Amino acid sequence: MKRIAILGSTGSIGCSTLKVVEGYPERFAVVALAAGSNLELAFKQTLRWRPKLLSVAHEDAAAALGKRLREAGAGETEVVWGTAGTVAVATHSQVDFVVSAIVGVAGLEATYEAVRAGKQIGLANKECLVAAGELITAEARRQGKPLLPIDSEHNAVHQCLRGGRMDEVKQVWLTASGGPFLQTPREEFASITIAQALNHPTWKMGRRITIDSATLMNKGFEVIEAVRLFNIPPSRIRVVVHPQSTVHSMVEFVDGSILAQVSVTDMRLPILYALAWPERIASDLRFDVLSLKHLDFCAPDLEKFPCLRLAYEAAEAGGAKTVALNAADEVAVVAFLEGKIAFLGIPATIQAVLNETSARKPESISDVLGMDSEARELARRFIDGHSSDSRVAATK
Amino acid sequence: MKRIAILGSTGSIGCSTLKVVEGYPERFAVVALAAGSNLELAFKQTLRWRPKLLSVAHEDAAAALGKRLREAGAGETEVVWGTAGTVAVATHSQVDFVVSAIVGVAGLEATYEAVRAGKQIGLANKECLVAAGELITAEARRQGKPLLPIDSEHNAVHQCLRGGRMDEVKQVWLTASGGPFLQTPREEFASITIAQALNHPTWKMGRRITIDSATLMNKGFEVIEAVRLFNIPPSRIRVVVHPQSTVHSMVEFVDGSILAQVSVTDMRLPILYALAWPERIASDLRFDVLSLKHLDFCAPDLEKFPCLRLAYEAAEAGGAKTVALNAADEVAVVAFLEGKIAFLGIPATIQAVLNETSARKPESISDVLGMDSEARELARRFIDGHSSDSRVAATK
Repeated sequence: MKRIAILGSTGSIGCSTLKVVEGYPERFAVVALAAGSNLELAFKQTLRWRPKLLSVAHEDAAAALGKRLREAGAGETEVVWGTAGTVAVATHSQVDFVVSAIVGVAGLEATYEAVRAGKQIGLANKECLVAAGELITAEARRQGKPLLPIDSEHNAVHQCLRGGRMDEVKQVWLTASGGPFLQTPREEFASITIAQALNHPTWKMGRRITIDSATLMNKGFEVIEAVRLFNIPPSRIRVVVHPQSTVHSMVEFVDGSILAQVSVTDMRLPILYALAWPERIASDLRFDVLSLKHLDFCAPDLEKFPCLRLAYEAAEAGGAKTVALNAADEVAVVAFLEGKIAFLGIPATIQAVLNETSARKPESISDVLGMDSEARELARRFIDGHSSDSRVAATK
Repeated sequence: MKRIAILGSTGSIGCSTLKVVEGYPERFAVVALAAGSNLELAFKQTLRWRPKLLSVAHEDAAAALGKRLREAGAGETEVVWGTAGTVAVATHSQVDFVVSAIVGVAGLEATYEAVRAGKQIGLANKECLVAAGELITAEARRQGKPLLPIDSEHNAVHQCLRGGRMDEVKQVWLTASGGPFLQTPREEFASITIAQALNHPTWKMGRRITIDSATLMNKGFEVIEAVRLFNIPPSRIRVVVHPQSTVHSMVEFVDGSILAQVSVTDMRLPILYALAWPERIASDLRFDVLSLKHLDFCAPDLEKFPCLRLAYEAAEAGGAKTVALNAADEVAVVAFLEGKIAFLGIPATIQAVLNETSARKPESISDVLGMDSEARELARRFIDGHSSDSRVAATK
């Protein structure tokens, strides 16, 4: 029986994790949940799963929810709050496995503490590797506990890596759907609208990750995640565009063999893989090979998608550069979605922030958070300072 | 240092094996070679590799070749002959690894003796699994030594199986190029000519295997090989048509993940994989993922390709049925190539022979050889008896 904590239980990955756990009551138990501000769902999840511990964002909400749970006969669940509450969920003594699925830097400290407490980690939080990857992977190696990736690409790589030893790996191929602008001519990129950018061809996701998919920055983040998860230099993490998103990634070995992972595009599969690892558990998440039909592959165009190039540069430098890459991108995407900057203003903002950022290695999570704030401030200043620059600002 | 014997050194796989060995003089040494009737090449190979032992087909050729080798200063190579000679090569005390690449039932006894002698086996001989698979795999399990497949499909499966335990395998997907008649309408199959059938779209191979690829019987044999190599029932060995022959095969696990192997279509790769196993050794056999472009997949048409259906039926029954499948096919293919029967006469002959064959399990290699002779005789009689039957005989 694996005893599970979920950081971000009310989010998309959190809900999918609970769906997976539901199917295997003899294998998995939910011990602790960290929700955010969706108190209604947190209440329902607590009634259903009866965790020992629930954490929510704020103190007053925790008090109110605790009262409501007692009235509903679920008073055995202790309700805590804030960062300390999330850390308590992540490090609960009865927890074996922590699913890290809080979006953004908010998940960093709790995930790091879970690693330090020797938990097995299922990692769905990008920032844990992009911003704090050097710290977290070093600690995981010290603990001798694997970080199991819960996203389709790195999960696929994890599976393909079973085909050989790490020193037998030539390179890793991350597949990219190519986003909505794969076929868009370069000269039309300046006039891409918010609606166009939000219209992703294969995956339905949140707004930021949808824009990051349209700029290919999402793939850039994945390059950095792969560098850190698998301890492979950026030059040996390659990207291939594969519009069908059926091959989730590949590993090329030194002898010339390539292993590729294929499955349905359903997050429950990488979640189940991580929860079950090192075993595989039967599921109904079937992919019919006879339905494969056509698969297409091509090289990404780094001229059309400068964010991918910027990510490689940040990956090579490491340290604060990758913290800044993520922070600047988040600020720029929000500004784009608010109509403040154009689509091409996103890479312009990130480039400007990277130019002003060192490659110093962070020494702690609070150091990461400091670097993150600094980069956000640089990004905001750049956007405000270029509100009349036609290459950055949105056309009205 | 792995010390290697090659059964069938002058054939296509034998020559490719020597090319692979040539690239890694610090890892592999050639200890013994079994050639056939190509004495000129056997002579050259002996001068180049200086094996301890060389076997050729006939006694007089062995004597003449021994004399020639002594005159050429290669007298340290002992020259032996016939089946006993091949067995001596396969069981030589200094040999660790035997590449079994003699075509046809001629390779059975030597391969079986190599397994009994506890050698690691690289298996490129189809009959070892199709005809004598029950005996040979049982002995290999008793010895605790793996049979490493040297053909692109089973080698790919072997690689993909590393992604989980055997009891986590849902099914195996063998890819098939589909042969030259993938797009040919059913009604044109009756008039397929020898030249059309010899024109294989992706692989350049011998005449029998090219015809077996055109009828999909080759894929049927591979189903039986997979059943026996991996100890999986026929119903869980599936075939998917994939004209590009880039994905060499796939393994589907119970959780819904599928691992696929991709590489160049060059036999040196599975040979290197088998020789190096459980390691992987760097090679220049690169496949450029960015050149993948389009991959197509579809279901095989068992109506158009009855040989594949017959192979599944033989696989389910086992024993003499699979011996007869191979023997009858070989006789039928020769008859087709001699213009005695039509393309559709091949499955008609095999069906007729299978109808008259029991599923009795062979108890020894000589038992297999007896079953083989019997099936060949049945096939010849069927062909002779239907020389005026328009559904079997070739149109003049």
